[in-house]
Amino acid sequence: MRDLRQHREALALNTATLGHRSPIEEVIDRCAEAGFGAIAPWRRDLDGRRPADVAARLRDRGLVVTGYCRSTYFTHASESERRAAIDDNARALDEAAELGAVSFVLVVGGVPEGLRDITAARQQAIDGVGALLERARAAGVSLAIEPIHPMGAAARAVVNTLAQALDWCDVLDPERAGGLGVMVDAYHVWWDPALETGITRACRDGRVLGYHVSDWLRETRDLVTDRGMMGDGVIELRRIRGLLEDAGYTGPVEVEIFSATDWWVRPEREVLQTCMSRLLDVC
Amino acid sequence: MRDLRQHREALALNTATLGHRSPIEEVIDRCAEAGFGAIAPWRRDLDGRRPADVAARLRDRGLVVTGYCRSTYFTHASESERRAAIDDNARALDEAAELGAVSFVLVVGGVPEGLRDITAARQQAIDGVGALLERARAAGVSLAIEPIHPMGAAARAVVNTLAQALDWCDVLDPERAGGLGVMVDAYHVWWDPALETGITRACRDGRVLGYHVSDWLRETRDLVTDRGMMGDGVIELRRIRGLLEDAGYTGPVEVEIFSATDWWVRPEREVLQTCMSRLLDVC
Repeated sequence: MRDLRQHREALALNTATLGHRSPIEEVIDRCAEAGFGAIAPWRRDLDGRRPADVAARLRDRGLVVTGYCRSTYFTHASESERRAAIDDNARALDEAAELGAVSFVLVVGGVPEGLRDITAARQQAIDGVGALLERARAAGVSLAIEPIHPMGAAARAVVNTLAQALDWCDVLDPERAGGLGVMVDAYHVWWDPALETGITRACRDGRVLGYHVSDWLRETRDLVTDRGMMGDGVIELRRIRGLLEDAGYTGPVEVEIFSATDWWVRPEREVLQTCMSRLLDVC
Repeated sequence: MRDLRQHREALALNTATLGHRSPIEEVIDRCAEAGFGAIAPWRRDLDGRRPADVAARLRDRGLVVTGYCRSTYFTHASESERRAAIDDNARALDEAAELGAVSFVLVVGGVPEGLRDITAARQQAIDGVGALLERARAAGVSLAIEPIHPMGAAARAVVNTLAQALDWCDVLDPERAGGLGVMVDAYHVWWDPALETGITRACRDGRVLGYHVSDWLRETRDLVTDRGMMGDGVIELRRIRGLLEDAGYTGPVEVEIFSATDWWVRPEREVLQTCMSRLLDVC
């Protein structure tokens, strides 16, 4: 396993971890100061800015962009909403390309209002991702399907295991022509009895576009915004990174913590310092 | 698919649905009056009563006992706690036998405090179930391993998919000598992309000891006690019962709703009537 102290380029921060409180320029500066070598910004961070300007600042601070977060949902009861979602995601893809992002992160959407049919929603999501694939290849930005914890199946994403996300990749890109893969987030997949198999397969097929860390708290009080800092929960983070790296993964380890009542209300510098020390000590 | 109106014996109520507010004698009477033909009591419902007395009242009201709820957790950091859990579950098995229950429902336990190792916890659970199996066979009560939604992996149970529960059955009972199976709860498994495969396998192997229904609310606010009434959420309940019955399932359809802020604070008769009408109309 890599010693992350020797791999600044692998130390990544997803800006959601700071709760989107400060302008992206400040976040970029603080990230670089804290020792991160990579960053994953969200669309809301741009908020009217020219992507080229943000990209210049990122270059200036020596930060690479891992993934651009994130797609709007592909799943909707009406076809016009589904078309609008694809159009919106196409615009985000262009921004991702201007930022120089490795990937555009896809949270595909849950079971939409007015459609009690998870199988149909899954097909809508596959179709939506498929509709973006050529554009992503042309833009040089890979589409990263993120399997979301099954507790998010109704409200956030109908792709809920690594195996399922990889099956979708095989359907959409049977030749492995590239431009399509998965985002592995320890929080979403740690419980999966088939995790080892999934990681081996994902790495063998060249599908792993990134790896997110946080922790699962024993007493989780919210289905989205109660993630723990690495080391404060039950996830065997060293083991999971070991599985990935043994299978050939050499990409970033990215902190992504949604924590409405704890980390999002702490000072940003404290959050960044804690993330960095935990990245180095327990991930 | 069966017309449940013609199958009173298949209409089951898990007493947790009423929030354990009234003495079991009253719950039994109300269940029978509401048209249920089967019931799943919890250990707390007995509360010092002789199981034989409760069994007599159940017979008197024409209610069969589907599953006795439920095991204490098998997973603990210390061996002495694990031994104590097996002893306690053995006592519960005897009570289940006295009640005439078809099965003893196993919620196996999560990742215990002091052990950040889900693989080890899983082995503890398998060992614990295995330690009870001969006693269960002798008592004529089957052990029903309940795969719990992955959001319960840390705090409640490390068996999180139907396939995994069936794998455990195969390990513990490779000859299919009986006395061991699974409890399928729509709330826990509805999201699983491998659900169809799992149900087919479970029925083929004669492993399905029961089927629970409730619903997944889009805006779920709690990881345990915010289940919805059937029809109020996103689960395709007809489809799942269809899969089970097409594969040969002929057992009960049991309502189990944990709902701290909604159904548990409504009058019991209203809850029972709603359960019954939804069982007949949407399940």
